[in-house]
Amino acid sequence: MDSYIEIIGFIAAFLTTAAFLPQVYKTWKTKDVSGLSMPMLAMFFTGVVTWLIYGILKNSPSLIFANSITTLSAFLLVYFKAKYNKK
Amino acid sequence: MDSYIEIIGFIAAFLTTAAFLPQVYKTWKTKDVSGLSMPMLAMFFTGVVTWLIYGILKNSPSLIFANSITTLSAFLLVYFKAKYNKK
Repeated sequence: MDSYIEIIGFIAAFLTTAAFLPQVYKTWKTKDVSGLSMPMLAMFFTGVVTWLIYGILKNSPSLIFANSITTLSAFLLVYFKAKYNKK
Repeated sequence: MDSYIEIIGFIAAFLTTAAFLPQVYKTWKTKDVSGLSMPMLAMFFTGVVTWLIYGILKNSPSLIFANSITTLSAFLLVYFKAKYNKK
C-alpha cells in the first residue's frame, strides 16, 4: 500500500520538477533575469528547503527526491539573478 | 510530534504558494503569456494535482492545503494561456 502511494508521489515529483527545468535552462541560456524577482526567488528557495525538511521528517522518499532537485533548480535561479542582474 | 511536523509543512506551504501568486497576478494584469509554454503548464498542472492526490493518501494537511491552492493557480495560468495566446 505504501509503495503504491510512493509511485503516485514519484509521478508527481517527475511532473513538477520536469516542468521547472526549462525555466532554469532558459535563464541560463538567455541570461535574461528581468522577469525574475529576487524576493520571490528567495521565498521560493526557502519554501522548497522547508518542504525538503518536511519530507525527511515524514519519511517521504518522493518529497525528498522532488525537493532535492527543486532546491538545486531554485538555487541556480537565485545565483543567476544575483550574477546577471543589471539594475 | 506530528503537529510539530505539520507546522513545518505549513511554513513550506505558505512560502511556495505565496512565491507563485505574483506570477498569476502579473499574467492576469499584463495578459502577456508569451513566456509561458502550454506543454509545461499542462505538465505542471497535472503534477500538482498528482501531489494533491499523494497528500490525501498520506493524510498530510499541509500537502493538501498547498496543492489545492497551487492547483487553482496553475489552472488559472493554463486558462490565461489558452485565452490570451495570439499565436
